[in-house]
Amino acid sequence: MKKGDATRLEIIQKAAPIFNRKGFEGASLSELMLATGLEKGGIYRHFESKEQLAAEAFDFAWKTAMERRLAGTEEIENSVDRLKQIVRNFRERREGLVPGGCPLLNTAVDSDDGNSVLRAKAKRALRGLLGRIQSIVESGKDRGEVRGDVDSNDLATLIVSTLEGSLMMRRLQKSEEPLALACRHIEEYLEEKIRA
Amino acid sequence: MKKGDATRLEIIQKAAPIFNRKGFEGASLSELMLATGLEKGGIYRHFESKEQLAAEAFDFAWKTAMERRLAGTEEIENSVDRLKQIVRNFRERREGLVPGGCPLLNTAVDSDDGNSVLRAKAKRALRGLLGRIQSIVESGKDRGEVRGDVDSNDLATLIVSTLEGSLMMRRLQKSEEPLALACRHIEEYLEEKIRA
Repeated sequence: MKKGDATRLEIIQKAAPIFNRKGFEGASLSELMLATGLEKGGIYRHFESKEQLAAEAFDFAWKTAMERRLAGTEEIENSVDRLKQIVRNFRERREGLVPGGCPLLNTAVDSDDGNSVLRAKAKRALRGLLGRIQSIVESGKDRGEVRGDVDSNDLATLIVSTLEGSLMMRRLQKSEEPLALACRHIEEYLEEKIRA
Repeated sequence: MKKGDATRLEIIQKAAPIFNRKGFEGASLSELMLATGLEKGGIYRHFESKEQLAAEAFDFAWKTAMERRLAGTEEIENSVDRLKQIVRNFRERREGLVPGGCPLLNTAVDSDDGNSVLRAKAKRALRGLLGRIQSIVESGKDRGEVRGDVDSNDLATLIVSTLEGSLMMRRLQKSEEPLALACRHIEEYLEEKIRA
């Protein structure tokens, strides 16, 4: 990696928690300078604008979140068990996540009346997560592991909204209970209504 | 109502959509001035600080949301049907809501690493909503309408997280589908697992 690229990546990594915690408007130049140890010119030598930096910081935070959420799923043979692993990962695999909570939840709420580039990023991120879950459900149907009448889009939507909503509550209540409950609920639902 | 009180209320009503859409940091003085038609001094004659105005704007937005969500529930005799009405209200009763989406979701995400006054407001708002649902569940248990082994706190948490998560998705996807799906899911759950 060239020195310029390494610096660029380091800026993204250090800016990501600030944008994730404070949002696009709330992330101040002074905080970004403090976190990166660079002057304004040092930061903006590598990025066209605050928007570009925020967009790449989101990509970085989301990539990390997706890696954690999908970790260990490829090895699992059965599709329903694979879905259950994703649900468990939401609760358990949080090491190395960008601080500040789920980047999708943050950016969805932060950008909906604000930055259109970030909104498009969040929308695509959501589509990606739903798509991964959907394809697991579809392959489960093909293999006879998932009931034939299950709508994969509906199931993916339900899983993601239940988990993301519980992340919001967990954040306010500073308690693990809402997320644990959401996970148990989905696991039960998968066993009772989805598994063939 | 005294003229000063009327002006104060009008400022709150006009500021509420701005704070709800943009968040505490994102709501600029110039937008607040434009919306209220007042100069800075005219606004801050009535409020100690931006924080105080934002807090009262949240209270106003949340009061409106709670009125809509609980509308028509008192008249319903059966507790499970009452819960189903709350769920339906989330989807259907949106007239007169402060623009910008659910104030609880917005403020929870916006304030968690930011303003502690707003965070406390959101936390109390969530507790209030959960408490209302819980008390319906408890009275349902007393009246034999809800199964005896239902944990009212767990059920309230599950309902709120599923609905709020779907509001986040609805916002990104600009589609009614996630919320409609969440509502159907909860209604089914109430019939199958909660109704005695």
